[in-house]
Amino acid sequence: MQKERLTAFSDGVFAIIITIMVLELKVPHGDDWATLAGLAPTFLSYVLSFVYVGIYWNNHHHLLYACEHVNGAILWANMHLLFWLSLIPFATGWMGENHFSALPTALYGVALLMPGIAYLVLQSVLIQAHGRDGLLARALGADVKGKLSPFLYFAAIALAFVAPWAPRRSMWAWR
Amino acid sequence: MQKERLTAFSDGVFAIIITIMVLELKVPHGDDWATLAGLAPTFLSYVLSFVYVGIYWNNHHHLLYACEHVNGAILWANMHLLFWLSLIPFATGWMGENHFSALPTALYGVALLMPGIAYLVLQSVLIQAHGRDGLLARALGADVKGKLSPFLYFAAIALAFVAPWAPRRSMWAWR
Amino acid sequence: MQKERLTAFSDGVFAIIITIMVLELKVPHGDDWATLAGLAPTFLSYVLSFVYVGIYWNNHHHLLYACEHVNGAILWANMHLLFWLSLIPFATGWMGENHFSALPTALYGVALLMPGIAYLVLQSVLIQAHGRDGLLARALGADVKGKLSPFLYFAAIALAFVAPWAPRRSMWAWR
Amino acid sequence: MQKERLTAFSDGVFAIIITIMVLELKVPHGDDWATLAGLAPTFLSYVLSFVYVGIYWNNHHHLLYACEHVNGAILWANMHLLFWLSLIPFATGWMGENHFSALPTALYGVALLMPGIAYLVLQSVLIQAHGRDGLLARALGADVKGKLSPFLYFAAIALAFVAPWAPRRSMWAWR
Repeated sequence: MQKERLTAFSDGVFAIIITIMVLELKVPHGDDWATLAGLAPTFLSYVLSFVYVGIYWNNHHHLLYACEHVNGAILWANMHLLFWLSLIPFATGWMGENHFSALPTALYGVALLMPGIAYLVLQSVLIQAHGRDGLLARALGADVKGKLSPFLYFAAIALAFVAPWAPRRSMWAWR
Repeated sequence: MQKERLTAFSDGVFAIIITIMVLELKVPHGDDWATLAGLAPTFLSYVLSFVYVGIYWNNHHHLLYACEHVNGAILWANMHLLFWLSLIPFATGWMGENHFSALPTALYGVALLMPGIAYLVLQSVLIQAHGRDGLLARALGADVKGKLSPFLYFAAIALAFVAPWAPRRSMWAWR
Repeated sequence: MQKERLTAFSDGVFAIIITIMVLELKVPHGDDWATLAGLAPTFLSYVLSFVYVGIYWNNHHHLLYACEHVNGAILWANMHLLFWLSLIPFATGWMGENHFSALPTALYGVALLMPGIAYLVLQSVLIQAHGRDGLLARALGADVKGKLSPFLYFAAIALAFVAPWAPRRSMWAWR
Repeated sequence: MQKERLTAFSDGVFAIIITIMVLELKVPHGDDWATLAGLAPTFLSYVLSFVYVGIYWNNHHHLLYACEHVNGAILWANMHLLFWLSLIPFATGWMGENHFSALPTALYGVALLMPGIAYLVLQSVLIQAHGRDGLLARALGADVKGKLSPFLYFAAIALAFVAPWAPRRSMWAWR
């Protein structure tokens, strides 16, 4: 099978995921600066997630560019990646609405971690289908670390958000 | 006519259906574990429907891969399939919100059954258009049962959910 | 310019319009038959609009199949058609929510009429761009009436809904 | 890399942005003329934004038609443009809901300005990637002013809306 419909379907899902997140920026009722300032955490989490999904689309673009044909395992590994990405708008919205409090921020970290794992699965399924000596394996082989780094980087940022912030908020909430 | 726009339009609708379902996972107001646990049934029904729509996209991909040209009847049989698939997010949301109670779960079963029937209609229209001796008929001929089985399988799972669970809940509700 | 991106963009908008309408079928809070029956008018108006947008996608597919190249006027005539089609979900939702009462049903009639006019504009812009003696003009020339008839037919159905129903409801509402 | 997936992804995002805006036209509860008239500002802001996003899609179509290959910088410059465009539905909805009052209208002006800047960035990245003497530079070179004018024109319209209207409303609001 050829990869055209796989990329077309994935582009559609990516486009919807990245655009659906802006729907969490709900139109508020007031029309003053305070109303606008109240949207700041939601807006910040939107920017963060837009960049994150953007990085995935970019990497997906590179990964499938080297791919020559698809099979059932690739279709499902790709669907698995899209599933975890589809949860990012929810995790983003929950974190934004709760002003980066502990549990929502931790869940956001999980929502960032799972697509990273799914991406590695898709990558290894693709390499298996094209042969360990194929063009794809050679194209990816050297920079697996390079491909992995943005995810680790972002997960670290997410954890950094959780670490200093969340305990303080939860302490405040428990007193 | 060529099939490119048919597959492009279908991919768009599939991508939207599969992504729209996550919108039923509404961002809750609390930020604790109880709030998260309350979302479990909605999340479960989302996973179930994601896999189900994913199976359909996979099969649609295989079915139209063998197709060489399209006509008016194929366009409408395809539209008919997309119509029933478009009701899955609603049925999923209703079942999830009512914690798998009787009527919503039964309706979910219907929502899973109808695309199965529409898929068989599309398949037979495609075979008719390409001739009973054509490549498509030969490609599909042998494994009609194979193509059918996932739908029966999933319908059975859905019914299994209804059978032990729903009566208990309704009894509880009627007392 | 080539027509690929025009059809890809249009397919995207068509796919979203046809799928967005199902969002008006809001997940209700109850889980019994009465709740389901209360959704009947919304569901009926959804079916009607799905078929209507489906007819437009079908005709758009045929129209642009004969088209060989696009220019600025064609891009904007197409955008104009998509604009009117994008209002159908709103008109559908308003009519469904108000159980086919007078003004929403009349507005629905307008929402069906305007894409018909926009379609004729797009058709004549396409013929102008390809020459009155070109392939497109010859392909469309004979069956302009045939292309027009579904719109008139559907507008008639819509008016038929308005005529006997709406006055009775409004009289009832005014007493 | 080839540009096919870049345009497919962008078309998807454009299609969703332009269609999502109509969701701000929320189905109202009444069914009379007053209800319909109350939607006028929301409808007006929808028309304005539809035309605006339409102009961008048109220009994006022309810009990438001349483009021969893409690289990482082009992918991100394009993502940057899509980010700002994705905020237009929110800005449109806020302005429409607040009947064109001062701050929302000013924010709408910003929402129109930012994609204009992002478009110029994308244009210069594209020229850089194709060489200052390349086909793209020659195709765009002469009419940079022509490409820029619609944005300035529309920003002027937006400011014109702000200028005479906003002070009056804010004075009224502060008394």
